[in-house]
Amino acid sequence: MTFEKLALVGTGMIGGSLALALRQAGRARRIVGYDRAAAALERARALGIVDEGAASAADAAAGADLVVLAVPVGATESVCRALAPGLGRAVLVTDVGSTKVEVLAAVERALPFPERFVGAHPIAGTERSGPEAATATLFRGRRCLLTPTAATLPSAREACAALWEAVGARVEVLDAAAHDQALALVSHLPHAAAFALAAAIGDAAGAGAPVAGLWGGGFVDTTRIAGSDPEMWRDIFLSNRDAVAAALARLGRELDALGRAIADGDGAALEALIARARTGRRRILEGER
Amino acid sequence: MTFEKLALVGTGMIGGSLALALRQAGRARRIVGYDRAAAALERARALGIVDEGAASAADAAAGADLVVLAVPVGATESVCRALAPGLGRAVLVTDVGSTKVEVLAAVERALPFPERFVGAHPIAGTERSGPEAATATLFRGRRCLLTPTAATLPSAREACAALWEAVGARVEVLDAAAHDQALALVSHLPHAAAFALAAAIGDAAGAGAPVAGLWGGGFVDTTRIAGSDPEMWRDIFLSNRDAVAAALARLGRELDALGRAIADGDGAALEALIARARTGRRRILEGER
Repeated sequence: MTFEKLALVGTGMIGGSLALALRQAGRARRIVGYDRAAAALERARALGIVDEGAASAADAAAGADLVVLAVPVGATESVCRALAPGLGRAVLVTDVGSTKVEVLAAVERALPFPERFVGAHPIAGTERSGPEAATATLFRGRRCLLTPTAATLPSAREACAALWEAVGARVEVLDAAAHDQALALVSHLPHAAAFALAAAIGDAAGAGAPVAGLWGGGFVDTTRIAGSDPEMWRDIFLSNRDAVAAALARLGRELDALGRAIADGDGAALEALIARARTGRRRILEGER
Repeated sequence: MTFEKLALVGTGMIGGSLALALRQAGRARRIVGYDRAAAALERARALGIVDEGAASAADAAAGADLVVLAVPVGATESVCRALAPGLGRAVLVTDVGSTKVEVLAAVERALPFPERFVGAHPIAGTERSGPEAATATLFRGRRCLLTPTAATLPSAREACAALWEAVGARVEVLDAAAHDQALALVSHLPHAAAFALAAAIGDAAGAGAPVAGLWGGGFVDTTRIAGSDPEMWRDIFLSNRDAVAAALARLGRELDALGRAIADGDGAALEALIARARTGRRRILEGER
C-alpha cells in the first residue's frame, strides 16, 4: 500500500525518520509536515524530510490518507482536537508515542473515528532529538509495538503493521496496559535512573568535587540517555505515572539494600546483589517473547 | 626502562592487559604470573599473557624487579603479606585497584618498603573480566591515575609513570583521598545504579512482568556495567564506603525528587530535573582538569 499524502505532525527524530524511511520505501508520495516549532519544521523541509510545511496540523492533514502523530504524548489530545474537523473516514491515523493507555484515551475523546487510529511505539529512540537526528534506517530490525483495541478496524491495524514492516521494523501486537507496564520497567526506569545519576554527579561537580575528566566508560554509558529531550520525557513520566512510580519503588529498594550492605560491611549481601543484577540483565536481554 | 622480570599477581582483564601491553612495548622480558584461581592462571599462560605460572604470589615475585598487584582491592593486604618476606629493595610494586586510600594503608601495614609502592588506577575497565578479556591496547589514550604519597620515592614514582606511558596511558597524579572521592561519584555510583537497576528489572521479569524482548538501547547501555565482576565490586564498595554512601545519598535525593514530581504531576519540576541532568552530564564529559 502506498499513501498518496502523509501528514507528519511533529518533525523530530522519530517522526522525521519514519517520513524518510517511508519515502525511501516508496510508500509515501507526498509528505506535508507541521511542527509547532517553526524552526524545526523549516529544518525538516531543508533536510528533505517533508516536501512542504503547513501552517497548522489541520492544514497538514487536509486530504491526507495517512496522519502520523509524532509529538510528546501529552500533546496527543490537543493535536487530535485540532485535526478532528478535517479528517475523512478513509484516513489512517497512527502515532509513535512511548506510552499508550493515555494516548488511546485521548484519541477516544478527541478523534471522530478512533477505530481508524492504531497506537504504535517503535523501540528505536536514542538520546538525540530534532530533525537533524532523523535517519531512514532507524527502524530496521527494531521492534515496533502496536496496541490496537477491540474497537480498532482490522483494516487499519493491518495497514499500520504493513507500514512499519515496510520500514524494516518487526511488528508485535500488545495490550496497551501491558505495554505501559513493561516499558515502565525496561525504558522509563532506566531513563529515570540516568536522569537522577547525571543530575547527582553533575551537581556534585558543580559544587566543587574534582571529577572533571575522570569519567570512564561506565559513566558514559549509564548516563547516555540523560541527554534525552526534557519535554518528551516529562510527558512519558506523567502519562505512565503509576507504573513508573512502582518501578521507581523497586529501584529504591535495591539501592537501599545496596547502601545497607555497604554500611554493614556485608560482603556476601553485596556479591549476591551484584550477581543478581548480572542474571537479571541476561534475563531481559535473552528472554524470548 | 625495561623490567627483567614482571611478577603479575592476578591474571584478570586489567592485569592481563598490562602484561600484554608491557611485553608488546618491549618493557618486560619475562612475565611470571600467579592467580589464586588455577584455571585463570592456566588460561593466562595459554593466551601468552604470562610466560609461566607460579605456585604462589611469593614464588612469582622471587627475583622480580616489577610486581603488579591486580587483585580485588580487599585482597591487597594479604597479598602484600605473602610477598613481603621475599621482596628485595630494588623492586617496584604497583597495583591497578579502583580505590586507593585503603590500598595505601594496607601496603603501609604489610610491605617492608612501602616507599617503593606506587598506587595506580587505569580508568579503562569494562564489564568484562578474566584473562580472555585482556588486550594489549586497553590503556591507549586512557587516563591512569597515580597516587604517590609524601613517602613515595621519586624514582619509584617516575618508573611507574614511565611504565604506564609506555602502554599508551595518559598519567595524572592525584591525592588518594581526592581520587576516592571523585571515583565514588563518576564510577562507583554509576555501577551501584546499574546493579540496582538490573536487579530491580530482572526481578520484576522473574516475577512475571512481560518485559522479555522489549528492551531498547537505554536498557542496554544503562545496565552494561551490571555484568561486572561481583567480587571486585564488593571490594570497591567496601573499601570506599563513606564516599560511596554519600554518593548514594545524592542519587537517592534525585530519585525522590523525580518520584515526587511524578506523583504531584509537576511537569515543570520534571523538565527542570531532566535539563539539569543533561547539563550535568556535559559538565562531567567536557570538564577539563
